[in-house]
Amino acid sequence: VWCITERDLGTISAGAAVLGAGGGGNPYIGRLRARESLRSGKQISVIAPDELADDDLTVVCGAMGSPVIAFEKLPRGDEELMALREVERALGRKATAIAPFEMGGGNSMAPMVIAASAGIPLVDGDGMGRAFPELQMTTYMIYGAPPTPSAIADERGNRLVFNEVADGRWLERLARSATISMGGHAGVATTPMSGAFCRQVIIPNTLTLARDIGEAIDEAVRSKSQPADAVLSVTSGQRYLTGKVIDVERRNTQGFARGSLTIDGTGQDAGRRIRIDFQNENLVLWEDGQPRATVPDLITLLTTERGEPLTTELVSYGCRADVLVLPCADLMKTEQALRVVGPRAFGFDLDPMLLPGRPRTETADSLPVED
Amino acid sequence: VWCITERDLGTISAGAAVLGAGGGGNPYIGRLRARESLRSGKQISVIAPDELADDDLTVVCGAMGSPVIAFEKLPRGDEELMALREVERALGRKATAIAPFEMGGGNSMAPMVIAASAGIPLVDGDGMGRAFPELQMTTYMIYGAPPTPSAIADERGNRLVFNEVADGRWLERLARSATISMGGHAGVATTPMSGAFCRQVIIPNTLTLARDIGEAIDEAVRSKSQPADAVLSVTSGQRYLTGKVIDVERRNTQGFARGSLTIDGTGQDAGRRIRIDFQNENLVLWEDGQPRATVPDLITLLTTERGEPLTTELVSYGCRADVLVLPCADLMKTEQALRVVGPRAFGFDLDPMLLPGRPRTETADSLPVED
Repeated sequence: VWCITERDLGTISAGAAVLGAGGGGNPYIGRLRARESLRSGKQISVIAPDELADDDLTVVCGAMGSPVIAFEKLPRGDEELMALREVERALGRKATAIAPFEMGGGNSMAPMVIAASAGIPLVDGDGMGRAFPELQMTTYMIYGAPPTPSAIADERGNRLVFNEVADGRWLERLARSATISMGGHAGVATTPMSGAFCRQVIIPNTLTLARDIGEAIDEAVRSKSQPADAVLSVTSGQRYLTGKVIDVERRNTQGFARGSLTIDGTGQDAGRRIRIDFQNENLVLWEDGQPRATVPDLITLLTTERGEPLTTELVSYGCRADVLVLPCADLMKTEQALRVVGPRAFGFDLDPMLLPGRPRTETADSLPVED
Repeated sequence: VWCITERDLGTISAGAAVLGAGGGGNPYIGRLRARESLRSGKQISVIAPDELADDDLTVVCGAMGSPVIAFEKLPRGDEELMALREVERALGRKATAIAPFEMGGGNSMAPMVIAASAGIPLVDGDGMGRAFPELQMTTYMIYGAPPTPSAIADERGNRLVFNEVADGRWLERLARSATISMGGHAGVATTPMSGAFCRQVIIPNTLTLARDIGEAIDEAVRSKSQPADAVLSVTSGQRYLTGKVIDVERRNTQGFARGSLTIDGTGQDAGRRIRIDFQNENLVLWEDGQPRATVPDLITLLTTERGEPLTTELVSYGCRADVLVLPCADLMKTEQALRVVGPRAFGFDLDPMLLPGRPRTETADSLPVED
């Protein structure tokens, strides 16, 4: 068991925002909330997935909505906890651990606040190994965790419980429209799982990875070396291009931030131009009309000077950034997973283009069978 | 206790469609479902509101969505029952009676099917004394019944429970967006009430009134007299105009059928032109740029020849109709009610114009106090 410190909040949220691949929300508010939890004497304790007992009840929590809205509309702070309480009520049982649904700036912090309030540990891992825009895109659901009971709650105290849904996509569809009606941002609790199941399907150690990335960036900034290099050394990713954002087209539709970025290469990359399409998260990187990197791999932007992750709600004309491509988790590379998180799941008629994996503990052999 | 017969289904659905004031859905499918219930040996028993015991648990049920969609998309048939079961589960108690939320073609039949399936009686009355487009527009909620727990369900088996909402308007907003995501049509169960409370706030005897209207129309058609006159004699309403529909503007937006009708007078009314604005139901009748009748009074169209109610999803160019204005129930005339169902609640900057009331049992003196 590892206890989160105030310093960890900074490194984890920065590292998680790198893993957020443009999405996962802005960490600023979430980080303040988590800090308040610590300062009020609460503990945020983290356990490794293999410390989960078979009969633990793990519930997946986080914030839902367009990060553009989350950045402008202050949450009340207990939306996710209200949602968790509704799931517990539907199950007639208290959760014994919280699992993040994704890594990302905001959604690395939200589960910490819930875990601290509920007085239960947070599992070191998540369901995406990055951020993705939709609820069904977790390894939890991909490998068969039931999508119900789930709940969402908003700052007015509105609470909705999904007791039965046709499948994870229907949960996404219904929860998304409720979130839009709630003003574009809500807390969600979903996918209750036994500890035994969670252990098998969670992408492990991503909180630790986020912290390592954050610390590597800190160290690089302190030593005036390249933050991007530091991130690549921890993640076995690649730098695709260094350049300047020359255009951002962004619209908030159907509860998502959708659009594209255009980046012109600078320095060694002068003369090149790339485009990145996004839906909350960066999805496909194009150059010369060809796809060069796609989901589920992570396409992430880091400001060249300070190593700050550029999320899709903040990126703007003139930002100078390194464009990195980081390999996704092996659990996201199976056929079963690629059907849900590959480019076709986002409407691109493309095969996934994937980097060789980063060192991980799970192997395809040990994958659980879908229920 | 009164047991509904197959013949009653015809007269009640026709009479309820008159009370539906253009809305309340098309009765055709609902009537077939109710008939199937009877033919399979189930009973639809109706009790008067004053037969409710103090500790009865009454749940309000019906279909939600744009009638345009309900007319095209076949329901599975047990959506409302699934929603009822979710409300019962949230309460930890079985309902002992069903109360319709409105009178209207479809929504006079849906509660019968539920009552028959659940094996509990239907209360002779409803929460509107007519149809209205939104959930908070019932006397139940206007006079203080809590809006939760409520539930909606669709034909795929998706089930949402509203355990807590800020108020009835938020229930409407959230349930409406879920209904839209469900394809525009859902079964709803809401506003659980004690028998004691329901007795005070229900608009009584409207099923009987619907049957009386339906029988009067039948009799008029048989005897080749004017169906409109027969309806007026039962409802103490007024004929406003006889004419021909010359234009219908209708769009399906935000889950409602919205638009307006233009009707030119014929015969004695030749040379006159009226417009009726609607949102599922007819809301305001205009002539010479002036409002002549408004919600909560009932503006309803009856085909001149056959006395068939013309609902807003069916009315079309060339229909020949009598335009009737029928007085709303006294419970809809209090200040408290007019804030929720008067013209301003629908965005019209108008004071309500109301006909003298039809004979009713309740008086303003005996109104319950809002919680």
